[in-house]
Amino acid sequence: MTLDVGVLGYRFMGQAHANALARLPMFFPDAPEAKRHTLVGRDEDALAEAADQLGFAHTETDWEMALDEVDVFYNLGPNHVHPEPSIAALERDIPVFCEKPLAPTREDAERMAEAAAGSDAPAGIAFNYRYVPAIQYARNLIAAGNLGEIRHVRASYFQDWLADPDAPWEWRLDEDLAGSGALGDLGAHSLDLARFLVGDRAGEIERLSGQLRTFVEERPVSGDGSEGETREVTVDDAYTAQAAFANGATGVFEASRYATGHDNANTIEVNGSAGSLRFDLERLNELEYHAADERGFRTIMVTEAEDPYIDHWWPPGHVIGWEHTFVHENYEFLSSVAADEPYDPNFADGLAVQELMDAIERSDDAGEWVDLS
Amino acid sequence: MTLDVGVLGYRFMGQAHANALARLPMFFPDAPEAKRHTLVGRDEDALAEAADQLGFAHTETDWEMALDEVDVFYNLGPNHVHPEPSIAALERDIPVFCEKPLAPTREDAERMAEAAAGSDAPAGIAFNYRYVPAIQYARNLIAAGNLGEIRHVRASYFQDWLADPDAPWEWRLDEDLAGSGALGDLGAHSLDLARFLVGDRAGEIERLSGQLRTFVEERPVSGDGSEGETREVTVDDAYTAQAAFANGATGVFEASRYATGHDNANTIEVNGSAGSLRFDLERLNELEYHAADERGFRTIMVTEAEDPYIDHWWPPGHVIGWEHTFVHENYEFLSSVAADEPYDPNFADGLAVQELMDAIERSDDAGEWVDLS
Amino acid sequence: MTLDVGVLGYRFMGQAHANALARLPMFFPDAPEAKRHTLVGRDEDALAEAADQLGFAHTETDWEMALDEVDVFYNLGPNHVHPEPSIAALERDIPVFCEKPLAPTREDAERMAEAAAGSDAPAGIAFNYRYVPAIQYARNLIAAGNLGEIRHVRASYFQDWLADPDAPWEWRLDEDLAGSGALGDLGAHSLDLARFLVGDRAGEIERLSGQLRTFVEERPVSGDGSEGETREVTVDDAYTAQAAFANGATGVFEASRYATGHDNANTIEVNGSAGSLRFDLERLNELEYHAADERGFRTIMVTEAEDPYIDHWWPPGHVIGWEHTFVHENYEFLSSVAADEPYDPNFADGLAVQELMDAIERSDDAGEWVDLS
Amino acid sequence: MTLDVGVLGYRFMGQAHANALARLPMFFPDAPEAKRHTLVGRDEDALAEAADQLGFAHTETDWEMALDEVDVFYNLGPNHVHPEPSIAALERDIPVFCEKPLAPTREDAERMAEAAAGSDAPAGIAFNYRYVPAIQYARNLIAAGNLGEIRHVRASYFQDWLADPDAPWEWRLDEDLAGSGALGDLGAHSLDLARFLVGDRAGEIERLSGQLRTFVEERPVSGDGSEGETREVTVDDAYTAQAAFANGATGVFEASRYATGHDNANTIEVNGSAGSLRFDLERLNELEYHAADERGFRTIMVTEAEDPYIDHWWPPGHVIGWEHTFVHENYEFLSSVAADEPYDPNFADGLAVQELMDAIERSDDAGEWVDLS
Repeated sequence: MTLDVGVLGYRFMGQAHANALARLPMFFPDAPEAKRHTLVGRDEDALAEAADQLGFAHTETDWEMALDEVDVFYNLGPNHVHPEPSIAALERDIPVFCEKPLAPTREDAERMAEAAAGSDAPAGIAFNYRYVPAIQYARNLIAAGNLGEIRHVRASYFQDWLADPDAPWEWRLDEDLAGSGALGDLGAHSLDLARFLVGDRAGEIERLSGQLRTFVEERPVSGDGSEGETREVTVDDAYTAQAAFANGATGVFEASRYATGHDNANTIEVNGSAGSLRFDLERLNELEYHAADERGFRTIMVTEAEDPYIDHWWPPGHVIGWEHTFVHENYEFLSSVAADEPYDPNFADGLAVQELMDAIERSDDAGEWVDLS
Repeated sequence: MTLDVGVLGYRFMGQAHANALARLPMFFPDAPEAKRHTLVGRDEDALAEAADQLGFAHTETDWEMALDEVDVFYNLGPNHVHPEPSIAALERDIPVFCEKPLAPTREDAERMAEAAAGSDAPAGIAFNYRYVPAIQYARNLIAAGNLGEIRHVRASYFQDWLADPDAPWEWRLDEDLAGSGALGDLGAHSLDLARFLVGDRAGEIERLSGQLRTFVEERPVSGDGSEGETREVTVDDAYTAQAAFANGATGVFEASRYATGHDNANTIEVNGSAGSLRFDLERLNELEYHAADERGFRTIMVTEAEDPYIDHWWPPGHVIGWEHTFVHENYEFLSSVAADEPYDPNFADGLAVQELMDAIERSDDAGEWVDLS
Repeated sequence: MTLDVGVLGYRFMGQAHANALARLPMFFPDAPEAKRHTLVGRDEDALAEAADQLGFAHTETDWEMALDEVDVFYNLGPNHVHPEPSIAALERDIPVFCEKPLAPTREDAERMAEAAAGSDAPAGIAFNYRYVPAIQYARNLIAAGNLGEIRHVRASYFQDWLADPDAPWEWRLDEDLAGSGALGDLGAHSLDLARFLVGDRAGEIERLSGQLRTFVEERPVSGDGSEGETREVTVDDAYTAQAAFANGATGVFEASRYATGHDNANTIEVNGSAGSLRFDLERLNELEYHAADERGFRTIMVTEAEDPYIDHWWPPGHVIGWEHTFVHENYEFLSSVAADEPYDPNFADGLAVQELMDAIERSDDAGEWVDLS
Repeated sequence: MTLDVGVLGYRFMGQAHANALARLPMFFPDAPEAKRHTLVGRDEDALAEAADQLGFAHTETDWEMALDEVDVFYNLGPNHVHPEPSIAALERDIPVFCEKPLAPTREDAERMAEAAAGSDAPAGIAFNYRYVPAIQYARNLIAAGNLGEIRHVRASYFQDWLADPDAPWEWRLDEDLAGSGALGDLGAHSLDLARFLVGDRAGEIERLSGQLRTFVEERPVSGDGSEGETREVTVDDAYTAQAAFANGATGVFEASRYATGHDNANTIEVNGSAGSLRFDLERLNELEYHAADERGFRTIMVTEAEDPYIDHWWPPGHVIGWEHTFVHENYEFLSSVAADEPYDPNFADGLAVQELMDAIERSDDAGEWVDLS
């Protein structure tokens, strides 16, 4: 079976997924054959150039038209473009793979999750960090009980590209287009990782308290003819949150685009009664693990043949990079599609994270804890 | 001038300060001469043995009697013993040096701060981590503006001695004796460090939201004849908090006695618009510093001759330990006493931290943010 | 222009280079078009399967026949297969790209270098670690004088796959097939990196003293019907060496396949009068750099847009992996071929490293220093 | 019993040992009582001031006179002062504790070891790094067989105080006064640590090859009236060495005073068939340990109550510093003296290290390996 894949979006995420599709045959020969069929975008020239570089056979400026042509639909556009095309595809029972966060708002996310629930096609959300081998290894340790009773989760995601107040405005800084700022862009990953790692041991997050902060309210518009022009920043630059899991474990979450010195520092630490572990995306081949009956944290290179996905790549100790997570997730999603099997993380997971983000925003507004019921 | 020092408490803190007093003449020859005069405690035999080992000339089981004999009074007993002797000493204009947290409750702390305000004698609080050379170095960097506008502070203090549910009960687990648990024992340090490092750039913490957690409600009593006996844990095992500083900077705080793999991990990180820094007490000779106009964090050994206090000790690169912070603080406190000059951190600082702790507890009770007004 | 590439070898290195060729169009669109034309090997079935997976259009069991078909010849076979096909190709003025070490013996390497010198085609050697962005960054720092006068170089390469005395025999343990053991397999990389990084500041290595060691002399043969069979290990398990560079700088080199805890720890440190730097392949996105007029080593993520090759990949902070070095080197080699320009590292560099390896072996035999004249 | 201790030398090492003696009663109450009796030096004024600060009851400018007064003699002067007073004391059966290296030359060291062998008094050498708790822990692991068969030892000691060519001349740069440079000052520690850690598993070093290097031949003399004056550097600035242990293990050693970025980086790594360990003096409370049947290196804080010497100090996780090693070694040496029991490391150990240093120098001269027979 060959799957004709249509992809909406040809920038960062478009390239990340196109690359993943291109690499499957050599490294995951049992993956279903997936053709880069149609690339969807609005600017015809840029689209044609991208299709050429990314290896797509066709282009299309109207996503509805594209849905007629493809077996699988990847929605990799800005957040505000997630709902309608995804829902339309699901209504036609076309499998959808959507970038995170699921939607700009909780309401949109609910609509999308409903569409997914009513569709015969799988609807995946691209929480790619679940597919870091070290994260899979961590989850396996936790699931096997190696950490015992989960007591604490702390996750943060730090970048610093807005630390300079003169950094230009872009769509990620607009509430209508992005929904939220650091919270949705970075925090969504932290919240999903927390759910993924400890969900079946600590349960869901039941209560949340959060704060959002915007440090620079207006930013220059870049581009010719925009000299002196500025535009309002209507999303958060940073957020913090604390949480209570169903089993009583505490959670602390934080993200910022002002954390100077950090480019892409997505970290998570979990403490349990029988052990602890730590992960940092900037050293994504490593996992630090402490077993309470041993002394110290071990720095484990999760690059052994028996580690998740590693046997598909290189000999032990030959480190992989950020992009490999996309290959793994494309492999899993397409395999589910081909086998007509359920896939997760799916739109229900996307909605669950969206509800947590929404609760953080409501808590910030109200100045009080919010119960997820 | 010789200062006759009376010390209440002869366990961990008693030894830490006795050692500091003993070491001053060799390493801080300009310190005022301080005599280990009277050691105060209740158990006469244990007290006599401790006085012998710690080098005190006299012992006293009644602290009021001891106050008649000494020029300076160190209150190093359990938290519930802090208020009365300290207040009595201050009423006699005897300089007081009190361990942290200032008191078991905010009300006690207020009484103590009032006594200090009404006394001619200085009243210091032993926030010893201010005296880590790397922390002083960090504060100097921040004060000089090297971090620019402060955006984020995060501080945590992790231990794991209660992770085992069979670890025995002790006074630190009793609300009446200790006031609080991880919050007062560990969190007080984090909150003080945050104030010390960024206070004059970011201002005070104005709002706080917190949660406390007790994981194990009852613990075995140790000692002969106590087999099978248990006692209730009436303090927190862990806390988390988020904060807003006056300038809008966010704060995240956490401490736990259940963080497996951590013995004494007191860490703080500050991000500003012009740079960041990180500190970890388990590597107390090091400071990680990022300047936004450079690339990467530098790991600086704060062990150069020009670094705070280092010229008193050993040649560059010869690392010091935890105990040296007590020597530095005793030197500073006693020098202030001898010179009849104000000293900080003082009881007002102790009260400020106590108010933050109190706000965290009230926030936990009420499920909402608390304003420090 | 399209280059038809013939590749001898379809195992580890074959896949690494096939992958690199496959990825060029998407990430290095200005690279010459390179077709995976013919895959060369001896076992027809395995070869056919590999060609299918690696995307080669043709297979060939006779490398001489293959030379008739291709524009560029990659020699990725075991070391003993390097000389004849490479020489034959060069005699036909077919560009050759050969894996390291250049040859099993110095004599072979000399023949190959002579063939390269007499050919109109470029002859590259695949010292891929030159193409780690952090290594390029390091070289640029050194070349720009940031380290001042070079004083010390130390490079080591540690693996542990032979630490278990029952690990099976393979061709890498046979002198006739491999030439040497840890020295040629790992040490060749260290020696090349040293030359690459400091060569134009410290000059060449002028004197060497070395020792080789074989810890386990015989190993079991794996495979059906080989039970109880063993085979002799005729190469070194580990080597150490010390060196003197032309400018007086000292060098220390070491590699081992018995360094338990290390999978692929290729590290190099350089100290100069004005600064130092450190690199570890297991954290290949990072470089540690100390400038003598600053304090401490900075941990620099060499993942910024302006860093070597990074703008071809992902946004700042999105780490790359081991395999990316092959993409960079294929890009550079093929670009040189297409432009008919000289390429380095070339066979002269390969011979220079081979001479150092040979000197280490002779020093071990003779128990004395060996001058490279 | 009270031991009257006489100490020759009142600078760095004098203060380190005086401090150790002063701290014994509080932390090692079972140590023999040791009185800081007589401080020996040449400059009467400086000596009197030092005696006052360091707590000595008497001073003496003639070491022979001092020997009449004391029960134990500490020889902490420059290296060239080690032989005569130590031999004289041993001839009178006065226990001697001598700083390292044992002597400026092998011949002197042999005379000293002979004197020790002929004396009824113990003769200790102050290899203080044996007394780092993490080093003791490491030795225990190795002695218990946890590392299996020892394969590799590598030890280096890096400082950078001579990297600046204008750093002033001092006695450590003069062959007559110091014997050697980085080799004797730093390398002696590395060689002793190697012997201490692996000696009973790998045996002694049997062959050595070394090189010495002096980068700056002349340095300015500091002090009033010395403007423009320079003095010759007659010792090594750096050395490298490779070694073969009796069991076949390889050794690599290096030290430098030109390793920019390193103040006091004394590191050692050992690889065995069953595990590996690493130590760095700049993080002296930590030991990195890999067991071959586990994954990764564990970073162990050697600060638990059951760790060597730790129960004498502070609760778990409260780190100690460089100076504590002197307290431990004074405790052990004086306890041996008081109990009239043999002590090691002793002059035989000092001679063994001196022979290794001598072999490195001879190897450098001859350009060939030197056998220790």
